[in-house]
Amino acid sequence: MDIRDMLHQVKSGEMDMDTAEKLLKDLPYEELGYAKLDHHRKLRSGFGETVFCQGKPDSYLVEIYKRLYERDEEVFGTRATKEQYELIKPAIPQITYDPISRILKAEKPGKEKKGWISVCTGGTADIPVAEEAAQTAEYFGCYVDRIYDVGVAGIHRLLSQRERLTKANCIIAAAGMEGALGTVIAGLAECPVVAVPTSVGYGASFHGLSALLTMLNSCANGISVVNIDNGYGAGYIATQINRIAEK
Amino acid sequence: MDIRDMLHQVKSGEMDMDTAEKLLKDLPYEELGYAKLDHHRKLRSGFGETVFCQGKPDSYLVEIYKRLYERDEEVFGTRATKEQYELIKPAIPQITYDPISRILKAEKPGKEKKGWISVCTGGTADIPVAEEAAQTAEYFGCYVDRIYDVGVAGIHRLLSQRERLTKANCIIAAAGMEGALGTVIAGLAECPVVAVPTSVGYGASFHGLSALLTMLNSCANGISVVNIDNGYGAGYIATQINRIAEK
Amino acid sequence: MDIRDMLHQVKSGEMDMDTAEKLLKDLPYEELGYAKLDHHRKLRSGFGETVFCQGKPDSYLVEIYKRLYERDEEVFGTRATKEQYELIKPAIPQITYDPISRILKAEKPGKEKKGWISVCTGGTADIPVAEEAAQTAEYFGCYVDRIYDVGVAGIHRLLSQRERLTKANCIIAAAGMEGALGTVIAGLAECPVVAVPTSVGYGASFHGLSALLTMLNSCANGISVVNIDNGYGAGYIATQINRIAEK
Amino acid sequence: MDIRDMLHQVKSGEMDMDTAEKLLKDLPYEELGYAKLDHHRKLRSGFGETVFCQGKPDSYLVEIYKRLYERDEEVFGTRATKEQYELIKPAIPQITYDPISRILKAEKPGKEKKGWISVCTGGTADIPVAEEAAQTAEYFGCYVDRIYDVGVAGIHRLLSQRERLTKANCIIAAAGMEGALGTVIAGLAECPVVAVPTSVGYGASFHGLSALLTMLNSCANGISVVNIDNGYGAGYIATQINRIAEK
Amino acid sequence: MDIRDMLHQVKSGEMDMDTAEKLLKDLPYEELGYAKLDHHRKLRSGFGETVFCQGKPDSYLVEIYKRLYERDEEVFGTRATKEQYELIKPAIPQITYDPISRILKAEKPGKEKKGWISVCTGGTADIPVAEEAAQTAEYFGCYVDRIYDVGVAGIHRLLSQRERLTKANCIIAAAGMEGALGTVIAGLAECPVVAVPTSVGYGASFHGLSALLTMLNSCANGISVVNIDNGYGAGYIATQINRIAEK
Amino acid sequence: MDIRDMLHQVKSGEMDMDTAEKLLKDLPYEELGYAKLDHHRKLRSGFGETVFCQGKPDSYLVEIYKRLYERDEEVFGTRATKEQYELIKPAIPQITYDPISRILKAEKPGKEKKGWISVCTGGTADIPVAEEAAQTAEYFGCYVDRIYDVGVAGIHRLLSQRERLTKANCIIAAAGMEGALGTVIAGLAECPVVAVPTSVGYGASFHGLSALLTMLNSCANGISVVNIDNGYGAGYIATQINRIAEK
Amino acid sequence: MDIRDMLHQVKSGEMDMDTAEKLLKDLPYEELGYAKLDHHRKLRSGFGETVFCQGKPDSYLVEIYKRLYERDEEVFGTRATKEQYELIKPAIPQITYDPISRILKAEKPGKEKKGWISVCTGGTADIPVAEEAAQTAEYFGCYVDRIYDVGVAGIHRLLSQRERLTKANCIIAAAGMEGALGTVIAGLAECPVVAVPTSVGYGASFHGLSALLTMLNSCANGISVVNIDNGYGAGYIATQINRIAEK
Amino acid sequence: MDIRDMLHQVKSGEMDMDTAEKLLKDLPYEELGYAKLDHHRKLRSGFGETVFCQGKPDSYLVEIYKRLYERDEEVFGTRATKEQYELIKPAIPQITYDPISRILKAEKPGKEKKGWISVCTGGTADIPVAEEAAQTAEYFGCYVDRIYDVGVAGIHRLLSQRERLTKANCIIAAAGMEGALGTVIAGLAECPVVAVPTSVGYGASFHGLSALLTMLNSCANGISVVNIDNGYGAGYIATQINRIAEK
Repeated sequence: MDIRDMLHQVKSGEMDMDTAEKLLKDLPYEELGYAKLDHHRKLRSGFGETVFCQGKPDSYLVEIYKRLYERDEEVFGTRATKEQYELIKPAIPQITYDPISRILKAEKPGKEKKGWISVCTGGTADIPVAEEAAQTAEYFGCYVDRIYDVGVAGIHRLLSQRERLTKANCIIAAAGMEGALGTVIAGLAECPVVAVPTSVGYGASFHGLSALLTMLNSCANGISVVNIDNGYGAGYIATQINRIAEK
Repeated sequence: MDIRDMLHQVKSGEMDMDTAEKLLKDLPYEELGYAKLDHHRKLRSGFGETVFCQGKPDSYLVEIYKRLYERDEEVFGTRATKEQYELIKPAIPQITYDPISRILKAEKPGKEKKGWISVCTGGTADIPVAEEAAQTAEYFGCYVDRIYDVGVAGIHRLLSQRERLTKANCIIAAAGMEGALGTVIAGLAECPVVAVPTSVGYGASFHGLSALLTMLNSCANGISVVNIDNGYGAGYIATQINRIAEK
Repeated sequence: MDIRDMLHQVKSGEMDMDTAEKLLKDLPYEELGYAKLDHHRKLRSGFGETVFCQGKPDSYLVEIYKRLYERDEEVFGTRATKEQYELIKPAIPQITYDPISRILKAEKPGKEKKGWISVCTGGTADIPVAEEAAQTAEYFGCYVDRIYDVGVAGIHRLLSQRERLTKANCIIAAAGMEGALGTVIAGLAECPVVAVPTSVGYGASFHGLSALLTMLNSCANGISVVNIDNGYGAGYIATQINRIAEK
Repeated sequence: MDIRDMLHQVKSGEMDMDTAEKLLKDLPYEELGYAKLDHHRKLRSGFGETVFCQGKPDSYLVEIYKRLYERDEEVFGTRATKEQYELIKPAIPQITYDPISRILKAEKPGKEKKGWISVCTGGTADIPVAEEAAQTAEYFGCYVDRIYDVGVAGIHRLLSQRERLTKANCIIAAAGMEGALGTVIAGLAECPVVAVPTSVGYGASFHGLSALLTMLNSCANGISVVNIDNGYGAGYIATQINRIAEK
Repeated sequence: MDIRDMLHQVKSGEMDMDTAEKLLKDLPYEELGYAKLDHHRKLRSGFGETVFCQGKPDSYLVEIYKRLYERDEEVFGTRATKEQYELIKPAIPQITYDPISRILKAEKPGKEKKGWISVCTGGTADIPVAEEAAQTAEYFGCYVDRIYDVGVAGIHRLLSQRERLTKANCIIAAAGMEGALGTVIAGLAECPVVAVPTSVGYGASFHGLSALLTMLNSCANGISVVNIDNGYGAGYIATQINRIAEK
Repeated sequence: MDIRDMLHQVKSGEMDMDTAEKLLKDLPYEELGYAKLDHHRKLRSGFGETVFCQGKPDSYLVEIYKRLYERDEEVFGTRATKEQYELIKPAIPQITYDPISRILKAEKPGKEKKGWISVCTGGTADIPVAEEAAQTAEYFGCYVDRIYDVGVAGIHRLLSQRERLTKANCIIAAAGMEGALGTVIAGLAECPVVAVPTSVGYGASFHGLSALLTMLNSCANGISVVNIDNGYGAGYIATQINRIAEK
Repeated sequence: MDIRDMLHQVKSGEMDMDTAEKLLKDLPYEELGYAKLDHHRKLRSGFGETVFCQGKPDSYLVEIYKRLYERDEEVFGTRATKEQYELIKPAIPQITYDPISRILKAEKPGKEKKGWISVCTGGTADIPVAEEAAQTAEYFGCYVDRIYDVGVAGIHRLLSQRERLTKANCIIAAAGMEGALGTVIAGLAECPVVAVPTSVGYGASFHGLSALLTMLNSCANGISVVNIDNGYGAGYIATQINRIAEK
Repeated sequence: MDIRDMLHQVKSGEMDMDTAEKLLKDLPYEELGYAKLDHHRKLRSGFGETVFCQGKPDSYLVEIYKRLYERDEEVFGTRATKEQYELIKPAIPQITYDPISRILKAEKPGKEKKGWISVCTGGTADIPVAEEAAQTAEYFGCYVDRIYDVGVAGIHRLLSQRERLTKANCIIAAAGMEGALGTVIAGLAECPVVAVPTSVGYGASFHGLSALLTMLNSCANGISVVNIDNGYGAGYIATQINRIAEK
């Protein structure tokens, strides 16, 4: 309810004092409207609630998926397992599961997309993280150009794709092991680059730490970093930037 | 030389086979024109070369500053010392030095600015890093709104500024110690947040590592991270996003 | 035996020299009475022995539970598995097991509670650790107010509960990933805050290290930290403080 | 202004719609009254603003000290240098500086104290941190019992002081190197123990990390930890607990 | 196509302007011929594509093995499992699998070998890594001398083999735990030593970190290091050096 | 052959030049007699070869156990599994396996023991490591006094056993989590203390790192440290010292 | 006072009840006699108090040195600076300072020595730590054989000294960088080896961490480790073992 | 002395038994001839002793330089300071010092060079390390091609130099911060690449750790790594490989 409307109702007597006081007591957060604002922002921006499925107890997960699906007619979750998919399927038959990206979602048909982001990987093993990023961006309304397996150990692979990079409003670079992909891309492209270290590797990769440090220490301009394996986070930021560009 | 022109000259015999072959051999880099492209990108985007002054030998530094200033009539360097300022002053009298941000620059007068970015800090000790970010963004053409000392230990300080946050195309959050500022901001704002961990702190802050990890593990959406104390990098990315928004 | 009594017996000849010397030789520990004192402290303060079940061999565990239950008519253990529960059930039919908190206990009925502590979590995944803390505090005689899923990425969730925070004698803040919850709470509350980093997260959370560092580097006053996932320890300290307040 | 009053005025027409709407918009922060609440909390609880002097620019520091001293007739800062003391002395002649604790303060005469806290150290090298804790607690109104150089390598030193420990409402244990002091104390005492790892040591002490980990992994109940060398934080928490006990 | 040929065709009119322009646009990478050059290098040097099997999805793996085997009549992969072997066997009956080295390969018969490299291990537990190195070198055409279980804790074992070391063009030293083997060998031998830390050990070996640091800090001259457990990498470098020696 | 004898034979012509030269060439290792010397040392000191069973391939393990048992009529291995026990039992029926210490051995009957070492643990969870140490020392001829569960969180437990500590020639202190046991013991005892950090704990114990650092930073004199969980190593050193004492 | 004497006096009435009770209350520490026992131990074993000079305030240091010198006619301190030497010289003219070992001591003339320990170093840069160990052992009554610069990168240097190693009751191995010296020595010698990692090195030596890990992971038997640069600790343990051997 | 000669002298009586026995006792090391072999290897290979000047006491340094210069008429040291240069200049007037590489040497005139190695850097700040490598290789007889400031953030800079890379027998890649240079080079070149992480950077570069991890995790084949800032080590290995190539 709008503040002004409520004030009018108080004035006119449509709303009694107690009801108004109670409403206003919650108002700071309704009016500041953290939840509401939040809600508005979600609706306006198209970023609905996302579910981080990993480790969620079964009963919670089903409940959350159902509630979100009922409200929004779609629901989007990351880091889901096949078991979780089978758990939710009876409740939401429209649900689909991609074992590569581990995204578990039900999506409204016919959603509009605009603008391009590119999602690049150093190797094929980085693809699950890249797909989490790419499908997140697609879900939130971006066209995505997948440029996979263009790691810097064979620099010609990346160079031969540089024209595709130029059309993107934002580029996501997912790489494990040495993680140098983002730097080279940021040196070639004009748009912001979001680097995602992946936990791909062994030994001194320390589960993604090596790639993370590489990316944080990038000599290139225009590159920022998200958590190891955080494809969703990268997809979200890329979408924000893409929307800014397409406004 | 344009490829098509060259081909015409080969066809017409104006250019002999050997010359053409030699040109084409260098072409990848001439035609790809990395250096040139780069140059064009700089010119077009307004991001001139920046000098990382820290540790540069005196003779190199003076030479670099002079050459860049001669070419562009302005020059911008970070992490400079007062000694470096005094070293360069005789060669470039227009040079100015800000001991807080440690930026050493000569700037063309009357440059246009557009769009807003916000630069926030958790405490006053984070201001040097924030100023590096802010002045970088200003140099590259952004209006900057400084919102300092709004750390989350006194959350009301930040909340009371939330309206100022809404006008920004990108928000930079610089914080040391626990580094939680970026998360709270990203929860309040719609635009991308670039978090800069600072080395402010002691003990288990481990020279910024604590803040860095906090920021990488942020539960909020829309937040990415740059290297510890890398105000310049944050300012650069914020400028990229601001330009996209203002295009 | 009391020292004075013994001395009287020596003087009166009731106790011979050798017996007295032998008793006094052990006295330091009897009289200091570490075990005894300890025992007194436990009885007086209501903190009975707690069993850390994790990794205990089956035979040891059953024996310990039986002995403690026989002595105290109640027994309290943490980090138990369902298998351990089934192992002990035949010996102590009153035993109950909570798979969330992993607490395995038999509790005397009708125990009195007094005073309030609050247990907050950043997300739902932190609830197991929070429940270990909450149920520990309840077992030792505190009323507990659970305020879950109020992480700082959506600061309004916490702010809307701030009144509940004011009634607590001590607040426990359990959070993983970035772990900033404790700081914001300590900025809002007057009572001591005990922060529990949880191992919730992935990538650069490094199994709770990120949250631990965040909490140690808190800019807020009145916050101290326990080990990663140590809900029991936090519940214990909160109980100590609650008792001080309710004395 | 009270919400109910305002609603009455709206209803009665004393307050027009625009004014009411504007007030309600700011209400969250006025009514929540963060800054005000904060202020009240400080006044009520006796915890005035504290200045973290380390790294503060000279001009800032003098200004802050002057403003706080003018408002409160006292001012308290930690981690100050002798140079900072000399800087402020002209502005606040009542200022005093203790080179051991590095506390720079001007304190109202005749402040009342009540309740006891104990501050223990493992060695003499931990005394600066312990003094920061002790003097913080004294400034905020606690009696402090200093029990120094009672490290566990010579356990009798601590044991001979155990009676002094029993009178404390809270015990602070400051220790570097191996940092085991807090555990032994928590095993002997009933009250909460706040452990402060110090950066005292060399080699594999890694500037306090070893002591920090020891304290976090304590097998004893009733022990929580603050940042390395954070005597102030420990003193603050001990004061909170002492006040609860003495209420 | 050769540049010169193309230029001739342009001149002669065999190739039209548009085709030539399009070709030249791709030329940088065709002509520079990263892929081609790469291909040439592979053919010329005898280093075919190697497959890193670990974590490859089944369908990808079979496809890659088949394509490589069809092209080269041989295929070589590392870090394969027995399951992967069974997966590929139906498609490539010539495939063989060594459970020690975990190498999954089909090799052309009758390949020539020349030059010697030595592969040494500290203990028997390092043999899997050593075998990955040795079989890699053999596959790429080296004779390999295996000198296993010559760790420095019993220095005579290594010393009694020193003559065998002298014939090698390059020595690989694989060792876990303390990892000192490489240093002692580099002190005895004249040729370059490639040290491979292995993840063999427990406790403070930290999964090979200890051995890695030892090797990086070697006091000996002529020793360089590859990633933990990277037998393949060591075998590759040793082969490069062996070929240089045998040219 | 003795050098002097050989020289005499050369002088007298009994040995020709070539034979002598060849012998001398091998001499360093024969004469130094590394393998032989080693063998002598083992026989003389009573330390037979020990088998580190963890990760040994089955075929190797059986072979090694058989060869050692045939030579020495006894064999001693650590970190064995029950499966390994069942593997070896058919070959060596005298073999016994202790699932606590994970020691797999066949021991000659009637071996003499002398001198005392003490093995202490902080908690019951440290017993497996302590038993590895204790049984190693017993196998190599020490009497062992087990003093378990005397952690410093309840210091009276240790103090009440201090007399038992005085009879030991060497004390082993095994403790996880905070690992402070060794320091307190070294402060009470006169003999050398060998501290064994165990991987017991959770969270910030980092698999024994916390205990390891504590022990390395011990303020007590006379304490040295072995690898995390290295009960065997501690038992070996204690035996060396015990033998020196009982010589 | 002896317990039995006191009991007799109580019985006979020479000592009244209150006095006896009071004495017994303190008895634990008097009779256990921690301080006394300690004192006795020191006198009996010849290990007087040692002063860790580093970071001691000037006034403390002078006082401590004077008090110890007055009581014992000798005094021994480690990690002293030249400034500290000059500070103490006026008070104790017999004081001497060795800038290599940084030992500051006054020693009784004509003290007896017995038994041998060996102190080895990997390089010349490790000598300061080795001298701290050697001079500690000499001060406490050992003969010391210095075997310096015998690092494993040139293994012949160590092998040529192996006979000298056989006479030692304990060997100290001080080494930085890779720190492998202790392992090779432990493989050659029969007596216990105490390894001291030194902070000598650069880059990935991480101030001694690399050497520390190497030593903890030693494959050799009979080696234990002390803190980085802790020459004093190694000298102390070696002395303990030497005394056991020479008893 | 040659063994055969000695045997002849024994036979002929020119050498008595005792002298021969004594010689042979040392023989293992003379004949194994560690020192001799070493000496021979140095002479034959041209690798003379190198002095690591850092931290060497003045008197030692002068002595070492003088002795080496007298023996070899040249001397080569790394990590020297200007002060050390001035210290040695009086003793060896031919000495020269390069403040960039910090090499302090006196070199025989007219030494022959052959073969090429390339030394590349990511930035200008890496040049000191690169020069240490380059001048080491030159001193030991290589031609060196310096390719500086070709970091991967501007990939065209490196690509335009790729032809120069093809002539090298070995390439050294020195880079700090993200350290990705080596990987890209190894992807372009056929010869072995020795990667040197430099400590250039700030924040999360952790003094070279980031670059080190990047290099160890390189996806490229044919790349090995030396310690952070170890230009000398890289130059040495490159020289070894260059000599193999030019043999």
